[in-house]
Amino acid sequence: MNFKFGVIGSGSWATALVKILTDNGHNVNWWVRKTDTIQYIQNRRHNPHYLSSAYFDVSLLTMNDNINEVIATSDVIVLAVPSAYLEEVCAGLDKDLMVNIKVLSAIKGLVPGADILVNEYLQQHFGVSIENYFALLGPCHAEEVASEKLSYLTFSGVDVNTTKQIASCFSTCYINTVINNDILGVQYAAVLKNIYALGAGIAHGLDYGDNFLSVYIANSADEMASFLRTTGIKHIVVGEHHTNPDTHQKDINYAASVYLGDLLVTCYSPYSRNRTFGNMIGKGYTVQSAQLEMNMVAEGYYASRCMHNINKNIKAEIPIAETIYKILWERLVPAEGFSRIEEVMV
Amino acid sequence: MNFKFGVIGSGSWATALVKILTDNGHNVNWWVRKTDTIQYIQNRRHNPHYLSSAYFDVSLLTMNDNINEVIATSDVIVLAVPSAYLEEVCAGLDKDLMVNIKVLSAIKGLVPGADILVNEYLQQHFGVSIENYFALLGPCHAEEVASEKLSYLTFSGVDVNTTKQIASCFSTCYINTVINNDILGVQYAAVLKNIYALGAGIAHGLDYGDNFLSVYIANSADEMASFLRTTGIKHIVVGEHHTNPDTHQKDINYAASVYLGDLLVTCYSPYSRNRTFGNMIGKGYTVQSAQLEMNMVAEGYYASRCMHNINKNIKAEIPIAETIYKILWERLVPAEGFSRIEEVMV
Repeated sequence: MNFKFGVIGSGSWATALVKILTDNGHNVNWWVRKTDTIQYIQNRRHNPHYLSSAYFDVSLLTMNDNINEVIATSDVIVLAVPSAYLEEVCAGLDKDLMVNIKVLSAIKGLVPGADILVNEYLQQHFGVSIENYFALLGPCHAEEVASEKLSYLTFSGVDVNTTKQIASCFSTCYINTVINNDILGVQYAAVLKNIYALGAGIAHGLDYGDNFLSVYIANSADEMASFLRTTGIKHIVVGEHHTNPDTHQKDINYAASVYLGDLLVTCYSPYSRNRTFGNMIGKGYTVQSAQLEMNMVAEGYYASRCMHNINKNIKAEIPIAETIYKILWERLVPAEGFSRIEEVMV
Repeated sequence: MNFKFGVIGSGSWATALVKILTDNGHNVNWWVRKTDTIQYIQNRRHNPHYLSSAYFDVSLLTMNDNINEVIATSDVIVLAVPSAYLEEVCAGLDKDLMVNIKVLSAIKGLVPGADILVNEYLQQHFGVSIENYFALLGPCHAEEVASEKLSYLTFSGVDVNTTKQIASCFSTCYINTVINNDILGVQYAAVLKNIYALGAGIAHGLDYGDNFLSVYIANSADEMASFLRTTGIKHIVVGEHHTNPDTHQKDINYAASVYLGDLLVTCYSPYSRNRTFGNMIGKGYTVQSAQLEMNMVAEGYYASRCMHNINKNIKAEIPIAETIYKILWERLVPAEGFSRIEEVMV
C-alpha cells in the first residue's frame, strides 16, 4: 500500500518523522505554518529551527502552509504537534475532509483542559472513527533519529492490517516497528510517563540517590501497568471503542518498549524538561518560579492534573501520580509527598 | 526478637550491613579474615579497605578471625562474601554448627562451577534447610548506604514470620525493608540482572543510543520475569522447596524493587564492572584482554554461563541472556549477537 502522508507540525518530532518517511522514499505533504520556514527547507533541505542536522530529499516533499490542502491531498495525516497546540491547529480544519481520513497521532499527551485522549477529541469534533485512528509512540528522542541510532516505534490501532501497512512505511535501517492494538493504553502510558519523570526530577532535587530512584521507577512502572489494566477493564465493561475483551487483558505486555521502554528513557534522561522542572520543585522552587526560570512548561505538570481528573472516573490505585499532582497543584510540600510515596513502594 | 547476628565478610557490602545493624543498636559478631584489619577497625572504628566513610559503634562489635566461633555465638549468620569466594570461606566450617542456624544470604550470585543457588549449596554441604535460609537482596549500592541515602532491601524466606523478624533488625531511617517469599526467584533475579547489565555495556560499546538502551532494558525485564515464571512452575511441579503453589505464581510482582529495581540500578549504573566490561567487549576487546585491562572479572561473565547451564533444564525462553552467553563464551561477534537481539525485542 503506497500511502500519501501529510505531516502536520514542524517541531523536532515532526521533522524526525519527515526524515524517516522521505528516507524510505515516501512522498510527504508537509504542513508548516510559516512560509519563511517552508522556503528555507525547500532551499536548504533542512529545518532551520529543529533537528537541523537532518537533511531531506526535497524532491519528495510538497510543502504547504494551508492545512486543509495538505489533508485533502493525503491518505494518512500524521499529527505531530505538541498536545498544548492541538486545538489551535485543528481550529481551521474542514470537518468534511476529516471524516474518512486516516489519522496517525504522534502526540504524546491528552487534550489540555478537556482531559480526553486525542482520539476522543478527534471523534467528538471531527467524526474521526476509532478504526481510522492510529497512534505512533515509543521511546524515541528525536535527536537519535536524526543521528540514525536504532530506535523502536510502536504503531497502535484497532485495525491490525492497516496498522501494519502504515508501520511498514516507517521501517528503515534505523527504525524497527512494533504493532500493538491497545490504542487507549498506549496513549495513557505516554501521558503517565511524563508525570513519573517529573517525579523522578523531584526525587533528584530532594537528594535521593540512585538506589531510591530505581525503586521509584520500578514502582512507577507497576503503577502504570495497574492503571492500564483498570482502564482496560472499564472500557470493556462499558463496551466502548471496539476493544476486544478476549484479547485486551491477556495479551498486553506492559514491559514492551511503548510502555516500560518509554518510561525508562523519559525518567533516566537527565536533560528532559520534566526532569529539570521536577528537580527545581524538589529544590524548593514554586511551580510559578520554576516555569519562569525554564521559560517553558514541562508536559508532566499538566499531565498530572489531567490524569487526576480522569482518574476520578477510572478510580485506579495510582498513589505515586496522585501525590505528584498534589505537590504540583495543591501545594503539598515535596518532602512530605515523597515520604508518602516511600510508604507505598515495595 | 533480639537476634545476635554474625556477619561473614569484610568487603563493601558486608561493611554496609554491619553499619546498618550497629546503627540499629544490634550486637554483631563480625568475622574478618585478617587480624590487622580487625585491629584497625577496633582502634579506628571504620574499615580501612572498604566503605571507609562508615563509622561504627565498636562497643557493639565482637570481632573475630575464627569463623566457627562467630557461628557458634550467633543466631543468624549473614553471608556477605562474593559468590566466587563462598566455597573457600565455607571450607573450614563446622557442619554441626550449621544444621540449626539461620542463614541470611546477601550473596548476589550462584555458586561458581556448581551452577546452583546458594541455598542449594548450603543444603547439600551443611544441611541448612530452606526454612532456615533467607535472602537479603535489592537495588543497593553500598556507597549510598554509607552516605545514608534511603534504600530498599528485600528479605525473602519461606518462613514469613521469621523473615519479618530478621528484616525488622535492618529497618532504619535510611533503610526500608520489604518482605517476599519467592526465595528462589529473588536469587535468580540477582544473577540475571548482572548478565543484562553486561549486555547493556556491550550495547553501549557498539554505539547504540539511549532509545535502544531503554528498549533493551525493558525487554530484559520481561525476559527476567518470563524466566522466573517458568522456574516457579518447574519448582511447583517437582514439589521442591516447599513453594506454595497457590500463591507462588499469582502474587509475585516482578516490577518490585528486588526484581525490576535491581535490574534498573545495575543496568543504568555507568560505573559498574558489568557495564565497563561489556563496553570493552562491544568495542572489540576479547574477553581475555578485557579481563587483563580491568584486572578483575565482571559478575555477569560467569553468570551468563551458569544461567546457560541451568536453563538446559529449565528451558525458559531467554534469547537475550543466551545471546550474551554466546558472545562471551562462544565467540559470537557482538554486532551479530545484537542484531539477533534486535529481532526479538518489542
